[in-house]
Amino acid sequence: MTSGLRAAIDFLLHDWLQVEALCARPRYAEHARDTFDAVLDTCERLARDKFAPHNRTVDVQEPRMEDGRVVLPACTHEAWRAYAESGMLAAAQDAGLGGMQLPYVVEAAGNAFFAAASVSISAAMLTVGNANLLLAHGTPAQRRAFALPQLAGRFAGTMCLSEPQAGSSLSDITTRAEPDGPDFEVETLGPRYRLRGAKMWISAGEHELTDNIVHLVLAKIPGPDGRLVPGVKGISLFIVPKWLVTPDGQRTERRNDVALAGLNHKCGWRGTPNTLLNFGEGRHPVTGPGVGPGLDGQGAGAVAYRVGAVGDGLRCMFHMMNEARIGVGMAATMLGMAGYLASLEYARTRLQGRPVGPAGKDPAQPPVRIIEHADVRRMLLAQKAYCEGALALELYCARLVDEQRTGEAAAAEEARLLLELLTPIAKSWPSEWCLEANSLAIQVHGGYGYTRDFPVEQYWRDNRLNMIHEGTHGIQALDLLGRKVLLEQGRALALLGRRVEATAARADAVPALAGHAAALRQAWQALLAATHAAWEGGDPVAALANAVPYLQAFGHTVIAWLWLDVALVAAGRPDAASLGRVQACRYFFHYELPRTGPWLQVVRTRDLTCATMPEEAF
Amino acid sequence: MTSGLRAAIDFLLHDWLQVEALCARPRYAEHARDTFDAVLDTCERLARDKFAPHNRTVDVQEPRMEDGRVVLPACTHEAWRAYAESGMLAAAQDAGLGGMQLPYVVEAAGNAFFAAASVSISAAMLTVGNANLLLAHGTPAQRRAFALPQLAGRFAGTMCLSEPQAGSSLSDITTRAEPDGPDFEVETLGPRYRLRGAKMWISAGEHELTDNIVHLVLAKIPGPDGRLVPGVKGISLFIVPKWLVTPDGQRTERRNDVALAGLNHKCGWRGTPNTLLNFGEGRHPVTGPGVGPGLDGQGAGAVAYRVGAVGDGLRCMFHMMNEARIGVGMAATMLGMAGYLASLEYARTRLQGRPVGPAGKDPAQPPVRIIEHADVRRMLLAQKAYCEGALALELYCARLVDEQRTGEAAAAEEARLLLELLTPIAKSWPSEWCLEANSLAIQVHGGYGYTRDFPVEQYWRDNRLNMIHEGTHGIQALDLLGRKVLLEQGRALALLGRRVEATAARADAVPALAGHAAALRQAWQALLAATHAAWEGGDPVAALANAVPYLQAFGHTVIAWLWLDVALVAAGRPDAASLGRVQACRYFFHYELPRTGPWLQVVRTRDLTCATMPEEAF
Repeated sequence: MTSGLRAAIDFLLHDWLQVEALCARPRYAEHARDTFDAVLDTCERLARDKFAPHNRTVDVQEPRMEDGRVVLPACTHEAWRAYAESGMLAAAQDAGLGGMQLPYVVEAAGNAFFAAASVSISAAMLTVGNANLLLAHGTPAQRRAFALPQLAGRFAGTMCLSEPQAGSSLSDITTRAEPDGPDFEVETLGPRYRLRGAKMWISAGEHELTDNIVHLVLAKIPGPDGRLVPGVKGISLFIVPKWLVTPDGQRTERRNDVALAGLNHKCGWRGTPNTLLNFGEGRHPVTGPGVGPGLDGQGAGAVAYRVGAVGDGLRCMFHMMNEARIGVGMAATMLGMAGYLASLEYARTRLQGRPVGPAGKDPAQPPVRIIEHADVRRMLLAQKAYCEGALALELYCARLVDEQRTGEAAAAEEARLLLELLTPIAKSWPSEWCLEANSLAIQVHGGYGYTRDFPVEQYWRDNRLNMIHEGTHGIQALDLLGRKVLLEQGRALALLGRRVEATAARADAVPALAGHAAALRQAWQALLAATHAAWEGGDPVAALANAVPYLQAFGHTVIAWLWLDVALVAAGRPDAASLGRVQACRYFFHYELPRTGPWLQVVRTRDLTCATMPEEAF
Repeated sequence: MTSGLRAAIDFLLHDWLQVEALCARPRYAEHARDTFDAVLDTCERLARDKFAPHNRTVDVQEPRMEDGRVVLPACTHEAWRAYAESGMLAAAQDAGLGGMQLPYVVEAAGNAFFAAASVSISAAMLTVGNANLLLAHGTPAQRRAFALPQLAGRFAGTMCLSEPQAGSSLSDITTRAEPDGPDFEVETLGPRYRLRGAKMWISAGEHELTDNIVHLVLAKIPGPDGRLVPGVKGISLFIVPKWLVTPDGQRTERRNDVALAGLNHKCGWRGTPNTLLNFGEGRHPVTGPGVGPGLDGQGAGAVAYRVGAVGDGLRCMFHMMNEARIGVGMAATMLGMAGYLASLEYARTRLQGRPVGPAGKDPAQPPVRIIEHADVRRMLLAQKAYCEGALALELYCARLVDEQRTGEAAAAEEARLLLELLTPIAKSWPSEWCLEANSLAIQVHGGYGYTRDFPVEQYWRDNRLNMIHEGTHGIQALDLLGRKVLLEQGRALALLGRRVEATAARADAVPALAGHAAALRQAWQALLAATHAAWEGGDPVAALANAVPYLQAFGHTVIAWLWLDVALVAAGRPDAASLGRVQACRYFFHYELPRTGPWLQVVRTRDLTCATMPEEAF
């Protein structure tokens, strides 16, 4: 299976994005195409050997709770160990921190193999994100004690944002953090607090894959009146380790007051335990040296170290967001690719039925392979167009991350702006359309695809999570139309428009693609017109009433642009894979891009049919 | 939950379809609105008490095999008993056969409550279909021995078409039936054969809910050369009882040679065991009185009684098809409705977030119920439009079945033609769009919807089957564009066109609906134009290359028409429910009908992008 995936990745990284050119930059000077290849080889091999064979196991042997512990199958432990030993947790880190100092785009491509093999077996993404946040916002002591052990695979990390009563609405969180004694600021690991509250939907919130777990927790510090500040401005960020640590990042035997309150039983993505955690509920009071008196003088409250300034928690947390959202988009994409490649293999071997038309009239002729049926080809080509288009988007965004980090000032600034605009698409588009791809993969298999003897039903179940976590579709849509397209007087949108036009202009010169160039320009103009029409009058209620159809149209337009850009590289090359890319581009322009018309129509007219539906009329 | 469903059904049955008018016909003369209501009351109550509470149980306690038997949870036995005792198995049958002699549309409406409560707990649909087929094509002795016990709930029925090597491709079946001895035609229960072969995907193929199981099996009778005739013309139909029966329909203690070879483990719809059956593999040789020598003189082969003429099997089997396909469409619709009503309830009570715009800026204000967010309303209104639109379609088709049975000759003939045309839509449209509704129901719930603590993820999994069984989307599409629209020189299409125009003409006179009437006419013309363009040149390969997009466009146009027809009844009424129907109609015209443009474009241009994709280019 991975050979098809590897070919797609290699083409996009090298023929399209030309990532080897990054090696001319000082940060990547030690690298070359062969070191990139070696990393991908390793990832492909580990994914094939340690992840793929266990994907069904982790679906069937769901995490279970025993005496407050989480029990995971042995294969998950082995997969984590193999991943940690590969060095991928520190793939993009400085060599001085023990990292490989790889471009992020290569790290993302390497991780893609693991997501395709078994998306839920590893929660490495959160660990890397957690460490990255601490490297950016933590003190040197915090980095040493909490970030480096994560990069080495000894500790794992979580993000604790949501609470049972406040899913996506962070301004309503009620987890409290109070200074731990009068000397709370005299603490090597950062100002010391005691924290109390419940956090919901915490992925990998409890397990025994690592020595320790580093929770990054959003909480509010009460004001002088003892009350929490309403809104997001009152939120600060805290490190809450499962076990207390020494300053050099060794786990001690002193348990912190973080307790597993429950496991969520999910429709898919079952390899990763998803938890409800109680902080400071009193199961493990912490007293003695190195901590303060606790909230009651007897060690009450989970010991927590503040990261960054008071009230600055959300800004710090958002540091993880762009990469996390690209990570979700990539996971969705890889589930799509896995289903595409599985259904392609099935269609190439399964015999059934006869061709349409005179050729198929003779029942004495043997049945054909189902890939010979036009509708099966349609379902395969749609999957290819969705999944390889999504892969192009994710790698493009990952390449922008590198540009932002290592490009010249102007290019870095452009990359930052484009990333702001494209992140909601990178998160949402694959989560919707690669899920659709998974449904088509089931359909290609017929009844067999609906059984657990084939992998595609699990891909489909796993993928359904991606429209929900890390910000739902609705939230991405509000971010895009309510914030990102307006950003800096529309500068990001204008910038993207110039890139779209540059691609179209190049395509004008290629006869096979010139028609697509015209269609792309038209779609872009329609998108701009709808954007302006939505905000005409300046009423956010009317402007945002159809934010999701806008998000869908924006995403389809972006993918059409990227497909055209990819086809520019493939066009004229004689090999079958290049022909396939040009054909997938054509599929996207003929079958998919026209869908933007109906989506934009309701945006442009500020249609209030849904918004004004009276509640009692449902 | 059911009260919302009941209201929707009552409105469509009475205010829209005016089914009480059927009571003027002799067949239904004993009925009136109150007897119809009593039936629905019973169904609603039994579904609530005996089905709904166990929907999760049958998902978790999947059927399992023990010593060749299928073990089902106790609740499934109780549900079956309650259903059988209600008389619903014979709801539409003649009073003389112990039936209630209800219109089929009322039977279908009553069964809808069970599907909404737990779609997979009961396989009653197959039993009724099996009995109906025997009543139509069986001899009096076959009816007495096999049909009547099914109507009484003592026996259950199956349909055995597919084989492992030939899913939808019936011409390739290899199950053989050979005369059982020289006197095989001298048999009370019909010409006696011995049958050998394997049948795949057999729902309720083995269980102990009933005394006996009546399998209706497609098989081929070898020619004089001992070979099977290729193609569908060689197929005959057979009754194969699990236990041999007496002529008066009592089960004997003599087991027939039908063996459970395996259970399929499905993504959803787990309450119904889905089986692989081996016929005549030798586990239970049948010898002695009442049977012939068997294939080897020692009772080899499953004892089978032919129904209808040799080679006429598929025609007989298709007798079950229209109702079975309406049944699948109704099941898909009810899964959609169940998810819609569950997410509506959740949205009305779950507090989270604040309104868009200035009203939501103050974090000190309490959060609002999520139904107040525009995008949640969009997701609810989309579900309502999909599911109540689908319900209108299914009930309209069910009403056509009644017209075909009891209408005046011309009206009955029209009903037959319309049913031919609409059946692929009735099967496919809800299976696609009520599945989409289930995905939206998950999305409304956010992370909770992805857990098994809420019912919506199961509805979504259950519903994914409906695009596959009883003919996939691809098969329905070929049936529609390859056969049904061409039927009798396009007479069915023209007839539907007249009904569409009649609705549009009435809507012209209603200011709130006149715009929709214009849009409907335009969509219908575009559909006709695409139909003609597809077949221009007469090449089925080009015409049918985009049969599925055509099916989708046809379905959306039909639902738009029905919504407008429904809105004509609701418009101007002052109650909230009527307002909601007009608004759902408007949603459908503004957000959904425009999607037909892109679908029809590839049909009209006979786009061969998919069909010509070279296999090696994937």
